[in-house]
Parts: sequence; structure tokens; C-alpha cells
Amino acid sequence: MLKLASETDASWAARVTQDFDEVLLDHAHCEKKAAGVALRLIFQYPEHGFLMEPLSALAREELAHFEEVLGWLSKRGLSFGRQRPSGYAGHLRKVVRAREPERLLDTLLCSALIEARSCERLGLLAAALDQPALGHFYAGLQRAEARHHGVYVELACRLAGRDAVAARLPAMAEHEAQVLAAAPVEARLHGG
Amino acid sequence: MLKLASETDASWAARVTQDFDEVLLDHAHCEKKAAGVALRLIFQYPEHGFLMEPLSALAREELAHFEEVLGWLSKRGLSFGRQRPSGYAGHLRKVVRAREPERLLDTLLCSALIEARSCERLGLLAAALDQPALGHFYAGLQRAEARHHGVYVELACRLAGRDAVAARLPAMAEHEAQVLAAAPVEARLHGG
Repeated sequence: MLKLASETDASWAARVTQDFDEVLLDHAHCEKKAAGVALRLIFQYPEHGFLMEPLSALAREELAHFEEVLGWLSKRGLSFGRQRPSGYAGHLRKVVRAREPERLLDTLLCSALIEARSCERLGLLAAALDQPALGHFYAGLQRAEARHHGVYVELACRLAGRDAVAARLPAMAEHEAQVLAAAPVEARLHGG
Repeated sequence: MLKLASETDASWAARVTQDFDEVLLDHAHCEKKAAGVALRLIFQYPEHGFLMEPLSALAREELAHFEEVLGWLSKRGLSFGRQRPSGYAGHLRKVVRAREPERLLDTLLCSALIEARSCERLGLLAAALDQPALGHFYAGLQRAEARHHGVYVELACRLAGRDAVAARLPAMAEHEAQVLAAAPVEARLHGG
């Protein structure tokens, strides 16, 4: 369903949960960035009316998650703050084509793949965390990310048609798998 | 309470409601931009933890209003689309000082004043509109903008203290009144 071209190694969650404070901080930034990406599309493509309501609702949901993760940080006595940028999304976007409508199609599919990878990894975290309340929170987020993946794929289909999406998504998923395989090993949601 | 330095002329609402379709399109953009401003502050100032939750919640609310205004556009058979930029916010921000923390203080106060002006004008629209459902919608938004004005003033106080805000806000309100007085006469929320 998620159309990822690689599967995260089973050892990943056990490793990163050892630095869970760092994962949580990274996760807060990821939710914030996801809202930022959706809002940027709203600003960039006002002429595509069909994008507006779904992306606005999606951005609201990402912001609600951002606030929830901030709450978890605070419960653990951690403060939010500036973070060293991750290369993941930037490398992923290197294959976005320059011309419209390919540019928007690829951008939507990048977001679909980021949501898919987040979904996979939040699910692994949900299973690996030994605190039931936190595990339950992550399981809920996993379902939300699966839904967001679907929203982006549907918007891409609405823009370019199912055939164009089916032709493009596997190549982009392959690229995403390569970007992730080359990512530095660190306690991040989209790290190696 | 709203700390504006000028009052919109009573004839304003009667005039712009004659082009209400244009006002509604402008209003949709205003809600979107308000969400964008709040989110930009979240991205720019992650080290100011106290800004994060209130601005995220505010951005979510602006996006919900954006979606509601899109609904009203759609009910009237209008489509959302690109809009000629308004000079209002840009001219307002010309007095934002360059150095921190003055820069952030002034930026928060700009937003407080934009919310205050929106509150005033949405209230005038609520009273002038002859459709009860639409008037009711605008009256609700007017209350939300008053609350948002309060959020920005409180964040400014939290950053710089009540005395610094009390010293700076009247001068910025005076500037806002001048910017608005010089704005071209058109069917916009922050037009002349």
C-alpha cells in the first residue's frame, strides 16, 4: 500500500530508541516541516483549487501533531530548539523535474514518499517503545501518516492521472530508498 | 482593547460589500497569509520555545478559517486563485527594526495590529452583510481575530516585558493607521 522500495532493517528501532530524546526532537521538526511543505504548496499553486482544502486540512493535522510532540518533549523535561538540518528531503527533491506540471507531480510524490517512510518508521517505533502511552501515541501517528500518504497520491492522480502516477512513483520510490540507504547513521526519523 | 490608532470610516463596509466577491477572495488569502506568518515565526525562532504552541494553534485556526472561506467562495460559485499582492503588510513591516530582540518584538506587534485591523473590519462586514448566515460567520471570525490580537500582544510581552510593549505599540499603531490611510481604495480587507 505504501509503495516504498525498501524496508527499514528490524534493528533500526532498537538502535534509535536508545537515543529517544533525539528522535523525539527530530520528530517535532518533522511534523513542523510537513506542515510547512503543505502550506508552501498552497502558496505556490493557488490556481489548483483542488489542492487547497486537502492540503490545508493536512497542514492543520501536522501542526496538531507538532504540538503533541512538543507536549511529550516537555513531559520528558526537554526543550525544543534549533536542529542541524537533515539532508533527506533535500536529496529526495533532487529528482523533481523543472517543468510544470511534472514539477508539481514530483513534489506531491516526494511528500507521498516522505509520509510513507514516516508511517513505516513510526510503526516500528510504536512497536519498540516500552512505554505504553508513548507507543499508543506513535501507533495513532502511524495511521495518520498512512492517510497523508494516500492524500498526496490522490492529489497527484487528480493532477496528472493514475497512469502518470503509476509510471512515475516506482522510480521515485527507488530514489527515496537510495537516499535513505546513503543517509548518515543517526537518531532521526529519516536517518540511516 | 485593540489599540488601533484610527477608526475605519462607517462608509467602508457599505462600499466594499458592493464587491463582496472580491472581498471574500481577498479574505481567503488573508487567512492563508495569517497562517503563513505564524508558521514562519515557528521556523525562524525555534529557540523561543514559548512561541511554538501558541503560534501553532493560531496557524491551525487560521487554516480552518481559510477552509471555511473557501467553502463560502464555492457556495457562491467562485473559485480561489492567484491574487495581486496587497502592499499593506509589506508597508507595515518597514518599521520592523533589524536587530534582535527588537526585530521579533516588532514582528509580533505587526501581527497584533493586522489582527486588530482584521477584527475591526470583519466586525463592520458582519454588521453590513444582509445575509444572516454570512453575517454570523463574520461575527465569529471577528471574535477570533480579537483573541489572536491578544495572543500576539501576550507573546510580545513575554518576549520583551509589558513596559517595552506599552512603549512600542502606540508608535507602530500610528504607522499602521498611516499605511492604511495611504492604501489604494479597493475591495480588500486591508484596503483604503
